[in-house]
Amino acid sequence: MAGVTINCDMGEGFGLYGFGDDETVMPYVTHANIACGFHAGDPAVMRATVRAAKRQGIAIGAHPGLPDRQGFGRRAMTLSREEVSALVLYQTGALKGFAAAEGVLLSHIKPHGALFGMAQREEPVAEGIADAAETLGLPVIAFSDCAMSEVFTRRGIAFSCEFYADLDYDDEGRQIISRAHAAVAPEEAAAKVRRVVTEGLTASVNGRDVAVSAQSICVHSDTPGALGVARAVHEALRDFL
Amino acid sequence: MAGVTINCDMGEGFGLYGFGDDETVMPYVTHANIACGFHAGDPAVMRATVRAAKRQGIAIGAHPGLPDRQGFGRRAMTLSREEVSALVLYQTGALKGFAAAEGVLLSHIKPHGALFGMAQREEPVAEGIADAAETLGLPVIAFSDCAMSEVFTRRGIAFSCEFYADLDYDDEGRQIISRAHAAVAPEEAAAKVRRVVTEGLTASVNGRDVAVSAQSICVHSDTPGALGVARAVHEALRDFL
Amino acid sequence: MAGVTINCDMGEGFGLYGFGDDETVMPYVTHANIACGFHAGDPAVMRATVRAAKRQGIAIGAHPGLPDRQGFGRRAMTLSREEVSALVLYQTGALKGFAAAEGVLLSHIKPHGALFGMAQREEPVAEGIADAAETLGLPVIAFSDCAMSEVFTRRGIAFSCEFYADLDYDDEGRQIISRAHAAVAPEEAAAKVRRVVTEGLTASVNGRDVAVSAQSICVHSDTPGALGVARAVHEALRDFL
Amino acid sequence: MAGVTINCDMGEGFGLYGFGDDETVMPYVTHANIACGFHAGDPAVMRATVRAAKRQGIAIGAHPGLPDRQGFGRRAMTLSREEVSALVLYQTGALKGFAAAEGVLLSHIKPHGALFGMAQREEPVAEGIADAAETLGLPVIAFSDCAMSEVFTRRGIAFSCEFYADLDYDDEGRQIISRAHAAVAPEEAAAKVRRVVTEGLTASVNGRDVAVSAQSICVHSDTPGALGVARAVHEALRDFL
Repeated sequence: MAGVTINCDMGEGFGLYGFGDDETVMPYVTHANIACGFHAGDPAVMRATVRAAKRQGIAIGAHPGLPDRQGFGRRAMTLSREEVSALVLYQTGALKGFAAAEGVLLSHIKPHGALFGMAQREEPVAEGIADAAETLGLPVIAFSDCAMSEVFTRRGIAFSCEFYADLDYDDEGRQIISRAHAAVAPEEAAAKVRRVVTEGLTASVNGRDVAVSAQSICVHSDTPGALGVARAVHEALRDFL
Repeated sequence: MAGVTINCDMGEGFGLYGFGDDETVMPYVTHANIACGFHAGDPAVMRATVRAAKRQGIAIGAHPGLPDRQGFGRRAMTLSREEVSALVLYQTGALKGFAAAEGVLLSHIKPHGALFGMAQREEPVAEGIADAAETLGLPVIAFSDCAMSEVFTRRGIAFSCEFYADLDYDDEGRQIISRAHAAVAPEEAAAKVRRVVTEGLTASVNGRDVAVSAQSICVHSDTPGALGVARAVHEALRDFL
Repeated sequence: MAGVTINCDMGEGFGLYGFGDDETVMPYVTHANIACGFHAGDPAVMRATVRAAKRQGIAIGAHPGLPDRQGFGRRAMTLSREEVSALVLYQTGALKGFAAAEGVLLSHIKPHGALFGMAQREEPVAEGIADAAETLGLPVIAFSDCAMSEVFTRRGIAFSCEFYADLDYDDEGRQIISRAHAAVAPEEAAAKVRRVVTEGLTASVNGRDVAVSAQSICVHSDTPGALGVARAVHEALRDFL
Repeated sequence: MAGVTINCDMGEGFGLYGFGDDETVMPYVTHANIACGFHAGDPAVMRATVRAAKRQGIAIGAHPGLPDRQGFGRRAMTLSREEVSALVLYQTGALKGFAAAEGVLLSHIKPHGALFGMAQREEPVAEGIADAAETLGLPVIAFSDCAMSEVFTRRGIAFSCEFYADLDYDDEGRQIISRAHAAVAPEEAAAKVRRVVTEGLTASVNGRDVAVSAQSICVHSDTPGALGVARAVHEALRDFL
């Protein structure tokens, strides 16, 4: 994953339920994180999403989540390192089956929702993800300055740090998670990611410049205006991808 | 899968729930069919069962079932060919992840319960299994004289035919499925499988000799007396394995 | 359930996933069939839907389905009478809890999807539904000339026969189930239901007049144009509700 | 729930999986806490357990748990008050359906596993349980000196405090939760519960006498030696039940 990448969570529908307009956003993305049937997705959705990503020539990664479909993997659970590595191996293995069926290789793992959040704070969770990534030989999309970056660095697990164009950051350079994302204007998102990629800086909510690692920019496919943001971010980073 | 093999369904516990005494039966078995988290099994059980099978040096295959945990995959469902291939790919891919983590390759696929029964009767279900097996490059444990053998033969999917030491057969050489298995005496089972392997014949419930294909003998790990039967079958086939 | 009623399946979202615009359709409906957490719905969705139905003053019934969320309860399964009565009791009991919390009583049961279809063809399934309905003392929305009507009539279970404004009927007066519903024009639907309610007749796909029982008209909330059809049907039946 | 009661978690099997020997323990118990299909149990198991409890003449309560079957409801999850009240209402409503089918009323609610633990520590979880209990008009089996007792007392929700014969207590009179329960000798358990019921005191792990509230004694049905303990506890409390 040299250069900057643009990643997007995809394949998060389930059965009859749709979620996000994946195929419309794909042209502006380099890496698809595909849900693996725990927090979202199912075998049919996974196959269709792998096929679409292959058609559009973007990289395919696993987006494993907690076994909590009703909560969309957004409710933290108490899990041991062993439980975490097992559920990441299971889900990534399942996706790998569909990728292999289409003759493509997986490129990365990006944990979903509360699992991602737990891995920032809880070392055993970060270790469990590292165990699975090491076994599978795959890099991880993660965050800087947290349990993940500490564990991955120590163990030599390849990872890239993610930056959200549509989240605010505090004075320590950490994203501020909010239930309801405020919509961000495409040109604002573009300016933000260009600065972060060229200068490694972003303005905190308090107007202070803070240093952030940003090897991969995350855009969304399920919010109103998502397409405009994705297109603007892609345009802004054209020379860095 | 040259020679005769002895296969057994394993890893069918779930969470706190145990099911069968896998490790005790393993020494008398050549192929473990490991549940993949749909009808039974979960990531932790799958990992433990793969490890045990590796330790005991037996072959590891996927045992995919219907998405019906409450019914233990024994209640037939209406599924399309596409749905079948997707759920076999998903489950086998997931198991492959755990096998890869232990440095072993999968050796085969054996469908579970109602999925296995549906594949005998319904051509689209047999085609769906063939689609997945072809993609994965794995042979299937199946039955002779049914939709599976017809489809697999036509498409060149490798398969071996299974014989149950503890089921009765009708005059057409088909096993008679009963809800409650009558216990079978170890010496009886031994004589039965030896005859089927050497002569290709078994006595039907009506006392008639019928021809049956038997490249793989199935024993169980979850019935009382299962260990004695497994041991006797293994002893009887020692020269044919 | 004297007079004609208009029923609609509701509360079929799940977690973050929406499904149909229930509240918009409610003013044109007399009976809401609320999903109970098996094929669709969850505790939060059930509570919200019960509250909305209460607010709009329409009757609240249970809409129990098969334990198959991925298939939206539309894939037939092999179930015994005992299994059917247990899953209807479970789901209806759960909904009753939310209704009681809002101080309202349940008015009826309408089986969902494949369970409804199975109950038309399979007597044990119809008996299982009758067992649950009898225990709960609730009438059922059903079909005429099928296993349900036969079983319910014999056992004295109250039921009303359903007519679909947006399905075609064959020369025997049975609805023709198709995967993809053709959109129906509001004025056509209105004319159709008015005739069925006043004359007990409808034109089959072959243009023949056939007798049909129609005490309850079913409209949908999840198809494009659903609102227009619901409004037209409601207007057409204003004097018969 | 005047006097002392003896309660036991029951109906915790699932599909083919058994769990504990409920019917053997029932004669020594006054209150059955029946699993409701989230952490354990299913419609068939619930019906069978309600019937057995009715036959043996013991009180029937709901034992709602987290939606985490693989973790047997023992992995804490982040839930809002609204989510908690909805899942307790859903599960208790479902059990009430089976109780009504047998002509019996529910007597109480006892939260299971991690939900119970969360309700001790987190006020919104305790409030959610109180909301459901209030709606249903049912008393709760709870603990003293925790968020539950505080919330229930303030709101006037009836509850009784539980004491475990097979757990150790610290100097503050709180039970010490351990993953692996040490087996307790029947005569020891008997002496312990007799003392707690007559004197309101138990010896802490440090040998200090501490005051504990004990209106309901909990015994288990799934541990080796459980029957002996249940019988001894029952005998010891014969005059207090």
